[in-house]
Amino acid sequence: MGDEIGTEATDAFGHELWDYFKKRQGREVIERDDGLIDPSEAAPGIYFAPFKDWPKVEKDGMAHVKGRVLDVGCGAGRVAIYLQRYRKLDVLGIDNSPLAIKVSKLRGLKKARLLAFEDIDFEPGSFDSVVMYGNNFGLFGSRRRAKQLLGRLLVMTSHDAAIVCESVNPYETDNPDHLRYQRRNRERKRMPGQVRIRARYRTYVGRWFDYLLVSPREMKAIAEATGWRLTQVLRERNSPLYVAVLTKT
Amino acid sequence: MGDEIGTEATDAFGHELWDYFKKRQGREVIERDDGLIDPSEAAPGIYFAPFKDWPKVEKDGMAHVKGRVLDVGCGAGRVAIYLQRYRKLDVLGIDNSPLAIKVSKLRGLKKARLLAFEDIDFEPGSFDSVVMYGNNFGLFGSRRRAKQLLGRLLVMTSHDAAIVCESVNPYETDNPDHLRYQRRNRERKRMPGQVRIRARYRTYVGRWFDYLLVSPREMKAIAEATGWRLTQVLRERNSPLYVAVLTKT
Repeated sequence: MGDEIGTEATDAFGHELWDYFKKRQGREVIERDDGLIDPSEAAPGIYFAPFKDWPKVEKDGMAHVKGRVLDVGCGAGRVAIYLQRYRKLDVLGIDNSPLAIKVSKLRGLKKARLLAFEDIDFEPGSFDSVVMYGNNFGLFGSRRRAKQLLGRLLVMTSHDAAIVCESVNPYETDNPDHLRYQRRNRERKRMPGQVRIRARYRTYVGRWFDYLLVSPREMKAIAEATGWRLTQVLRERNSPLYVAVLTKT
Repeated sequence: MGDEIGTEATDAFGHELWDYFKKRQGREVIERDDGLIDPSEAAPGIYFAPFKDWPKVEKDGMAHVKGRVLDVGCGAGRVAIYLQRYRKLDVLGIDNSPLAIKVSKLRGLKKARLLAFEDIDFEPGSFDSVVMYGNNFGLFGSRRRAKQLLGRLLVMTSHDAAIVCESVNPYETDNPDHLRYQRRNRERKRMPGQVRIRARYRTYVGRWFDYLLVSPREMKAIAEATGWRLTQVLRERNSPLYVAVLTKT
């Protein structure tokens, strides 16, 4: 494919966003390493949703976002563009998908950069808020990486900074496939909600990566080991979805 | 799993039918050997559709079904149960999915047998009609196997028997993934519409198999090489779907 990063065969997620952006069609499919195949009922459409259609916790969580913002895993720019346009904040969106960045820019995000979360290397005190919506606390990947990256974010943010992040509580499920997966994770000494997944879209096959789903209690423990403190948990009604606010201790 | 064939890990198709039968939930996902992942907008619900909701060609094709009927790939029993209940015909449904057979029986199909198409071995003159709906001409798999199995069906059916079969014309598409696949097939000297696929459902992964999509012209050529004749083609409006009637020469 050469320089044309937009057509990378592994950018399944980006192609999904691209097709939806161009033609309002397509469906996200996530594959898990136990063979689970999971066609989404809502994505990719949900990645383009206007503020009024967001889950209530996501709307409420926005009250904790201020100043210079880093949007981790900005996708199609849903959250970053909202903050830039309606809150007039200085937002940088990062994503490891070339086509996600392209879509974000075409949709009006001024600052969007192709960058994997694990490669962040910003100057000390660069941001006042870090946003990780759409379950993107998951991008921490594992307990170990969460601690490393939270440590780095501690330095890269101002003293009164907040991380406003979303997850789903993996224990609020009765799905036998998920419960079996959690048992397997415990046996392998992984966090129960650490899922190894990849995106599938048309003939595009994403790279495998770890995505970490945690309970508020687990998130609290991880945060507290790194100089952050879980100060607030906003819970979505009748849903395992929640938004947490982490501030500095 | 032992004797409990219903829980075979490879019976992804059957599990999809089973969950829909029990809970009216789930979505069919087909994976092709070029990596294509294809979540269905209609299946498995469509496998349970009452006659009134069938495509027009399928309704019209029923006029050619009579006497003792073999339903190849009966799935959840959609067609076989209709013929048994409303046409009072003597129908045997066969399927290679244990759970499909279980669902068919529970839904009221009197004669349903776990049997792969390639293993059919009925007495001469056993059937007056063979039905292959839901694109099930595809179960012939390849040109070579189609000729073999059509030859066997010639013997197993009565002199005025008809095969009422459905396919989609693979050339009526502008999907770049399908066009690329067809080019690859031509290079490999396979029929352009011969797709190697498997079912994915929850954590169940079906076995790979070949499914043959043909144009009416290709079907005609295959039939004529085996003692059958394509006597009628019923085309669905604004759709590549068609039902063909094969009779004996």
